[in-house]
Amino acid sequence: MGKLIVVALGGNALLRSNQKGTYQEQIQNVTETCQSLASFIKRGDKLIIGHGNGPQVGNVMLQHEAGLKVFSVESMPMDYCVSETQGSIGYLIELGFRKVLAEEKINRRVVTMVTQVVVDKNDPMFLNPTKPVGPYYSEEEAEEYSEATGSVFKEDPRGRGWRKVVPSPQPVRIMNIDIVEQLANEGNIVVTVGGGGIPVIEENGYTYGVEAVIDKDLASSLAAIDTNADAFYILTDVPQAYINFKKENQQALGRITLAEAKKYLEEGQFTEGSMAPKMRAAIRFVEATGNEAVITDADSLSTPGAGTIIVK
Amino acid sequence: MGKLIVVALGGNALLRSNQKGTYQEQIQNVTETCQSLASFIKRGDKLIIGHGNGPQVGNVMLQHEAGLKVFSVESMPMDYCVSETQGSIGYLIELGFRKVLAEEKINRRVVTMVTQVVVDKNDPMFLNPTKPVGPYYSEEEAEEYSEATGSVFKEDPRGRGWRKVVPSPQPVRIMNIDIVEQLANEGNIVVTVGGGGIPVIEENGYTYGVEAVIDKDLASSLAAIDTNADAFYILTDVPQAYINFKKENQQALGRITLAEAKKYLEEGQFTEGSMAPKMRAAIRFVEATGNEAVITDADSLSTPGAGTIIVK
Repeated sequence: MGKLIVVALGGNALLRSNQKGTYQEQIQNVTETCQSLASFIKRGDKLIIGHGNGPQVGNVMLQHEAGLKVFSVESMPMDYCVSETQGSIGYLIELGFRKVLAEEKINRRVVTMVTQVVVDKNDPMFLNPTKPVGPYYSEEEAEEYSEATGSVFKEDPRGRGWRKVVPSPQPVRIMNIDIVEQLANEGNIVVTVGGGGIPVIEENGYTYGVEAVIDKDLASSLAAIDTNADAFYILTDVPQAYINFKKENQQALGRITLAEAKKYLEEGQFTEGSMAPKMRAAIRFVEATGNEAVITDADSLSTPGAGTIIVK
Repeated sequence: MGKLIVVALGGNALLRSNQKGTYQEQIQNVTETCQSLASFIKRGDKLIIGHGNGPQVGNVMLQHEAGLKVFSVESMPMDYCVSETQGSIGYLIELGFRKVLAEEKINRRVVTMVTQVVVDKNDPMFLNPTKPVGPYYSEEEAEEYSEATGSVFKEDPRGRGWRKVVPSPQPVRIMNIDIVEQLANEGNIVVTVGGGGIPVIEENGYTYGVEAVIDKDLASSLAAIDTNADAFYILTDVPQAYINFKKENQQALGRITLAEAKKYLEEGQFTEGSMAPKMRAAIRFVEATGNEAVITDADSLSTPGAGTIIVK
């Protein structure tokens, strides 16, 4: 068997913002993504897939809110909503990947593990919720919900209304990651840390859910470190990272060193909420393991050496 | 290590009909169920947990319908809804069981596998949908939805309105069941075939979802057969099965033979939609393996020899 690869997929690999998000569209999108990921499998690599859930968990939160309004169905907190998306997205990835494997006549299994990720209850991010989730509200609605639930709401910078914001603490420990590693090393394609993982706090040897969202690239980076992955790929919408982005002297980054990546990050070359957290997740993996991290898009996976490659 | 046990839990082990179904209630219910299941673990047994999702998938369907009405979020078919409940219920079982294990100072891991279950597209049940799912509608609404979606609706026998009915085909094959078996035999508590499994049809080596509901006791029975389980437990609301139920000569069944179980079933002693399918699932396991199947409630698990035990 080849290398052990961990890939982090964006939630939009399944549900794209320019689509309605029908079941058929999602199946089509995920199958295309799996076709790209099949490059690793054809090379004989072992594969662990982490994925985001931004659009999906947003829809689940809307459905919970509407279900409460229309049918008085109890709505559930973030950790529960994330667990729902781990089930559904994992299922769709299994469908897509099995189809690609069948077409390529490759005999590998695809398994999805529901995954809790432990965060630190003293993480400073709990004092400063920043991650917007769920529907947009009017200022009056936001105030009302805030008083009723204690949730924090902030105004959308693009003027679309007010949104609930939740903390985005650091992932500390991935539950059952040794089982993920074992299954992947046995040749199974393993889906894990969906949506960054179900956020939980550990106390007295057990865990409980917490209202938070863990960055999926950071959680996948930790999965890559903990499973001793040979390489960590972050898939995004662009083939490479850029410095001087959208300026005259814009430059696509190919193979760069850890020191260069850190320098560019400190210079503010990468957009917060977009390329910057991806670069941090990549840096963390390279620092911890000395192995390569790659930031690229799905289409570039079939071209060896494509993308922005961060080396020690 | 002791025996390998497969237990099928009812969906109401988490979400009870006399409760509102809040998050805290569900956590409390599942933790109590896991306290009962801990009897097996304390004995050193290995454990696979199958579970239903009746109330949960009903809520998910309501949330999808409301989300479409209120926020125009695309609603998803049954297979997708089941996959969501596999994520959420598996997560809650993990939370509950880890708490119980921590209290008992037992070091075992709990893992949840998203699980597809293959059904036969030529299963005669596809021609005769019988399983009611989701919300109740008026006759007019039901006609309208039926014309728009092609779904079949039937009137509720208790006069609560019209409900969509879906086929309930036989489970043919459980995807990744060998991984479930392996993980369980390594000492992990494994949650699988949630809601009877995500119903899929297999064609050309891959699978696709289908509008159906698989009986969770039958799916768990198949899981027990395929993993060579030493015993199969079906947990329900009553400590034992009865013959002549609610008649003067009512008799609780203790240890009975396979032949007796089949005779009582043929006589119509067990209620369809309730004890009858459980007895069929138990019979199937005993016939296939020669090992014992037990039908009982959670409280009786700590008493060896309690419940209705079907032996070869």
